[in-house]
Amino acid sequence: MTPDFFPQEIIIKKRDGGALSQQEIEFFVSGITNGSFADYQATALMMAILLRGMTAQETAWLTDAMLHSGEIIDLSTIAGTKVDKHSTGGVGDKTSLILAPIAAACGLKVPMMSGRGLGHTGGTLDKLESIPGFNVHLSVAEFRNILQQVGVAMIGQTPQVAPADKKLYALRDVTGTIECIPLICASIMSKKLAEGADALVLNVTFGKGAFMKSKDMALELAKAMVAIGKVSAKPVVALLTTMDQPLGQAAGHSTEVIESIECLKGNGPVDLMQVTLALAGHMLVLGGVAKDMPDAMTQMDRAIANGSALEKFRQMCIAQGGDPNVADDYSLLPTAATIADITAPTGAPGYVCEVDALKCGQAILALGGGRRAVTDKVDHAVGISNLIKVGDKVSATSRLCTLHSNDSSKAARADALIREAIKFSSAKPQIEPLLQDLID
Amino acid sequence: MTPDFFPQEIIIKKRDGGALSQQEIEFFVSGITNGSFADYQATALMMAILLRGMTAQETAWLTDAMLHSGEIIDLSTIAGTKVDKHSTGGVGDKTSLILAPIAAACGLKVPMMSGRGLGHTGGTLDKLESIPGFNVHLSVAEFRNILQQVGVAMIGQTPQVAPADKKLYALRDVTGTIECIPLICASIMSKKLAEGADALVLNVTFGKGAFMKSKDMALELAKAMVAIGKVSAKPVVALLTTMDQPLGQAAGHSTEVIESIECLKGNGPVDLMQVTLALAGHMLVLGGVAKDMPDAMTQMDRAIANGSALEKFRQMCIAQGGDPNVADDYSLLPTAATIADITAPTGAPGYVCEVDALKCGQAILALGGGRRAVTDKVDHAVGISNLIKVGDKVSATSRLCTLHSNDSSKAARADALIREAIKFSSAKPQIEPLLQDLID
Repeated sequence: MTPDFFPQEIIIKKRDGGALSQQEIEFFVSGITNGSFADYQATALMMAILLRGMTAQETAWLTDAMLHSGEIIDLSTIAGTKVDKHSTGGVGDKTSLILAPIAAACGLKVPMMSGRGLGHTGGTLDKLESIPGFNVHLSVAEFRNILQQVGVAMIGQTPQVAPADKKLYALRDVTGTIECIPLICASIMSKKLAEGADALVLNVTFGKGAFMKSKDMALELAKAMVAIGKVSAKPVVALLTTMDQPLGQAAGHSTEVIESIECLKGNGPVDLMQVTLALAGHMLVLGGVAKDMPDAMTQMDRAIANGSALEKFRQMCIAQGGDPNVADDYSLLPTAATIADITAPTGAPGYVCEVDALKCGQAILALGGGRRAVTDKVDHAVGISNLIKVGDKVSATSRLCTLHSNDSSKAARADALIREAIKFSSAKPQIEPLLQDLID
Repeated sequence: MTPDFFPQEIIIKKRDGGALSQQEIEFFVSGITNGSFADYQATALMMAILLRGMTAQETAWLTDAMLHSGEIIDLSTIAGTKVDKHSTGGVGDKTSLILAPIAAACGLKVPMMSGRGLGHTGGTLDKLESIPGFNVHLSVAEFRNILQQVGVAMIGQTPQVAPADKKLYALRDVTGTIECIPLICASIMSKKLAEGADALVLNVTFGKGAFMKSKDMALELAKAMVAIGKVSAKPVVALLTTMDQPLGQAAGHSTEVIESIECLKGNGPVDLMQVTLALAGHMLVLGGVAKDMPDAMTQMDRAIANGSALEKFRQMCIAQGGDPNVADDYSLLPTAATIADITAPTGAPGYVCEVDALKCGQAILALGGGRRAVTDKVDHAVGISNLIKVGDKVSATSRLCTLHSNDSSKAARADALIREAIKFSSAKPQIEPLLQDLID
């Protein structure tokens, strides 16, 4: 039985820099849903947590309490190690769409629960829904069946998973308490642990287009999440990757699906494939399908080369009600009314030295391809493709990207944002490595 | 016109240690009442203010915004300088009941708006209501009339005064955000500035029975409030006084009214008279009635000696519907069923070295003479009198105090608390000076 506390006593303890007990944290998390902890008390406590911090032990208890606030999906009847991937998000980050079929083609079970886009960042569910008929709202039983038969299923989070997190996240969003490592860590890990995977690979992004702007903060979050994995006896590996420019050359929905399919066909851009294969490789190793990263790389190269990765993608489409022919005929995807190139300004010097991912994300928003509020509808047809990359050589009239738009005034705003995003230099710029660190 | 802000932007600015602009603070305060700033956003912001602080300028803007959230009482039609007093509270603190008639008898206009007791601290309104018929709920017009005719009126705060403070205080009370100098300062000063006085004397208490436990915090608050007075062009003087033991020898309601009347008759305990006359003296000086403190002391001694202070008390009772005969016949006040002495334990050493004001306040609560929640009713008859003081000599069977009770089991709990409150020593203890500092 949970002992009774006064919410303000718990708040004051944290306010004054104390460490909360497991009982106090459980009282807080259960109180959010049963009403014994009011919203205005929860936000005061979360601000105190943001400014005073939490120990690793407190963060683990918080994660555990949030995990147990709802349903925990049981995938134990499915043979093999189930490995999921989670990214802290960015612009052009379509790695899930590529790595899930690749890993499944190599024999891994990939139960994937993804999110929707918000603000300048895209979401996997929205991208999948640009495939005609594709259904991301499966029941847990359907999810389990498809995972068993196809080896991969990609759905949205069910409302029953970590309901306390849903409530707290909505409050954090409007009270300036998002940017808090223990709260971010507990939010991500409680959901991921509730989703039934045995192991988890994390892509912790940082930079202009990421949620976290600094590498230090990304590193701290990565370490906190890996630590939670340890206490939960679920292996977790975190990659730190830069997100200063969009990942790959496409951003949007249809445009990203096309780029993902091209990756599965072996025609992916270097940066996107590097991140995707690093993440998928660690998934294969964690899942026991590959003995080490070189082995994983060999297996994945083969799955792409022999078409089995693309075939897995088609199977997943069929299993989830989607049209598998999109893999061969891109005109089956929502297509924008106007598809036109944006070219470099006259006199642009020799090299691209910056492609600001945040501004590119804002361009997608301007086109109608994003959400300002969670209730907004997205236009799956709009976006950008053929995006130029940092280090690329340019001359006047070089293509900067191709803009897919359905409205000329929206296109004009997006055009201006893209032009703002891209900067030039006469000297070839230094390129930061994409993969910055590995925490395990 | 107030510019529009997002509440979370204001919260984030303060969270990150920034100083808010006047427009942001006004948006916050007006938003609390008009709903554009939700309760759960207000509490997150207040926690950030508590942990990050506010500049003197921000505190002044906050006070001003809260002051203008409601009605500002206009006393300008009443001749002379109107001076109010405010205390941060304590146990046995009945200085208002004594100094208001004394100062009015000396010719000062004393418009007093007081509060009720809560927790272990008593409130002036509750004490006044032990006088049969005494009405503290006057309209502003009645308040103004009595002030004009009698020179003193004592009422409760009207709901129209600083409504934003009422909302914020209720939220602070349950979110661990009470102990914050800028918020306390703005809360007190916005109300006091709205009440129409021209000048203000503050008694900032600290110690076991006070709201503030440390002298440092009391000093910081006193300085902040005096600074607000300066920017508002209202002279403010703050006294820092200790509140380790109860003030005077009585605590409760009837018991404190009796002690107050005794003070007006010239029979007051030394400690109580010292604080009362210091506060009233500064009121007379600020109000221009006395040219300096020695002059004020002479005038006050005369007002007590010639009976004019007591007569002013009677006039105030009559004006506010109370029975003036209580001044001469204490049996007209609510009287407890059982009035009995508590005596020192056998073998008690020579001196009283501590009378814990907090425990004494808890004894009043135990007797039914206090409020745990604002909606509780108080028993005006119960309390303590003849309380022994730190430094008093004792022997076995010496009286520690007289207990006024209406219920034997409640009396037993109060008895135990009083016995816990009082400690003895063989050596005569060092006595801390009551008046510790003066800020002006």
